[in-house]
Amino acid sequence: MYTFDELKNIFSDYIEKNMLRDEPKGLYEPVNYLMGLKGKRIRPVSCLMTANIFSDDIVNALPIAYSIEMFHNFTLMHDDIMDDADLRRGNQTVHVKYDQNTGILSGDLMMIMSYNHLINNCHDLELKDKILKLFTSTAIEVCEGQQYDMDFETRDDVSLNEYMLMIKLKTAVLLAASLKAGMVIGKANEADSQNMYDFGLNIGLAFQIQDDLLDTYGDVNVFGKKIGGDIVQNKKTYLYLKALELADAENRAKLKLLYNSNSDNPETKVKQVKDIFNKLDVKTVAQNLITELAEKAFNHFNQLSVPEQKLEEIKKLAETLLKRKF
Amino acid sequence: MYTFDELKNIFSDYIEKNMLRDEPKGLYEPVNYLMGLKGKRIRPVSCLMTANIFSDDIVNALPIAYSIEMFHNFTLMHDDIMDDADLRRGNQTVHVKYDQNTGILSGDLMMIMSYNHLINNCHDLELKDKILKLFTSTAIEVCEGQQYDMDFETRDDVSLNEYMLMIKLKTAVLLAASLKAGMVIGKANEADSQNMYDFGLNIGLAFQIQDDLLDTYGDVNVFGKKIGGDIVQNKKTYLYLKALELADAENRAKLKLLYNSNSDNPETKVKQVKDIFNKLDVKTVAQNLITELAEKAFNHFNQLSVPEQKLEEIKKLAETLLKRKF
Repeated sequence: MYTFDELKNIFSDYIEKNMLRDEPKGLYEPVNYLMGLKGKRIRPVSCLMTANIFSDDIVNALPIAYSIEMFHNFTLMHDDIMDDADLRRGNQTVHVKYDQNTGILSGDLMMIMSYNHLINNCHDLELKDKILKLFTSTAIEVCEGQQYDMDFETRDDVSLNEYMLMIKLKTAVLLAASLKAGMVIGKANEADSQNMYDFGLNIGLAFQIQDDLLDTYGDVNVFGKKIGGDIVQNKKTYLYLKALELADAENRAKLKLLYNSNSDNPETKVKQVKDIFNKLDVKTVAQNLITELAEKAFNHFNQLSVPEQKLEEIKKLAETLLKRKF
Repeated sequence: MYTFDELKNIFSDYIEKNMLRDEPKGLYEPVNYLMGLKGKRIRPVSCLMTANIFSDDIVNALPIAYSIEMFHNFTLMHDDIMDDADLRRGNQTVHVKYDQNTGILSGDLMMIMSYNHLINNCHDLELKDKILKLFTSTAIEVCEGQQYDMDFETRDDVSLNEYMLMIKLKTAVLLAASLKAGMVIGKANEADSQNMYDFGLNIGLAFQIQDDLLDTYGDVNVFGKKIGGDIVQNKKTYLYLKALELADAENRAKLKLLYNSNSDNPETKVKQVKDIFNKLDVKTVAQNLITELAEKAFNHFNQLSVPEQKLEEIKKLAETLLKRKF
């Protein structure tokens, strides 16, 4: 079995070997720029890890991991335009470094390239078909998730169920599909593939709730982003929606008022919102949900009918993902 | 054999039956809006026409024609953002009717949907693989064409060869691939498929040069757009680039100066540019090129090893496309 870091290195070499060197430069260069910023590469490595359960040779899984990473980066390039974000992985976003039209068109190319790489580098037609079906239904879901996320910005009546659906579509399904893709490559049985998918889905959900939690309650030195950013931006996170649900009429009105204003003093605003969160103890509620989701995930994981020692690295990855400090 | 209009009706019914009715509305509705504006549907019907050469039953070709039309409309949705266009088919463009983020994300969805429909509705794996390879390489070329087109706006040294490459990529390859797709569905031999592709490619090029010509020399009542629009927008068309090539130093400088200015009086500007065009007789040069490209196209067409009567409708379509009045 390869470790996460070993697979990440193999994958990095593959990405490097497959850098796009075509013309026109204005189209291809931004793709290499964003792909070159690397990132954690959890999704492609997840695909390699599950393929690695069934074979020591993961060469067949590399093109599919590549397509997953290319697709993920396409969503980042376009999301950054839609969210008006200046930074990505500590560097300028593509539409800032180049211009908006470049961000749109190079993003389009990445989407096409993710299909193209898969179509031209996977040679088992039946396997390719299965992967393409998984890939394309996941891609649709990711778009739906992004749309819900944007819709929520202007909506005043977002329910917790809707929020869970949004993060499932926007974030969790791609991790789930990445893990499943490696199972499909390894010709796992249907039940194992589905359990691995559901494992990934629940890990993905837990990870996102944890992200919400860290944004408000994290340690700035560990989290790497400014604490309270979601509150300043009036983001309807799990904490906010749960607080609305638990609050009495007075606190609910206060919270809504705080979220409808752009405070001159962000620190005061963060403190005021956090006071309400603390009173309602939404931190504990969120932590309990994360635990529940992790249990669900490992419930599926434990049903897998593959030798336990083959799953050690994947288990380690999931634990690392959920172990981030508060 | 079906006529163009019969196939267009069959295709319209198919589109209608396959309208997207999913949630969230903000994502799916703009897709139906743009697809509902119809347009000439030359590309999907071209695919149906070539499939119809080999079979009276064109039902297998419909999903592929659908994917082609969905892809084409995706490019329109994103191009309209990049070109800052307000109108499409006489109606508001998506980013104007909704907003820019909608134009980006619903466009992304259309791109994915074009793959998705093909992947899930074509059941012969080998055929599907061939079509996917043709489709995805064409999609990459179309992005390259759009990038060249945008690059040319700010470049001062565009050659005629580069221009021909740009219109080939941006416009002609999709018509060529649409015609070829129907040949692949009909299991035509390689030579016939390639000849049909080259036929479409040259018809596409001729059509685009003719479009340039009509924009300056057309009859407003027939052309449907204001005459001289390309000149007012300083578009580096075939006429402009050819005129630069043929002009003496004085006229070249004059033409460049006119194209570097935004005249307060567009009519005067159009007249001044047209005077230079007329002096150099670029109209005749362009007409000769169109004739040459049409001859090339029909040279490939005449090499097809299928019964002549099966090609009548396709021939008629090509002639209609090239017969628009000046």
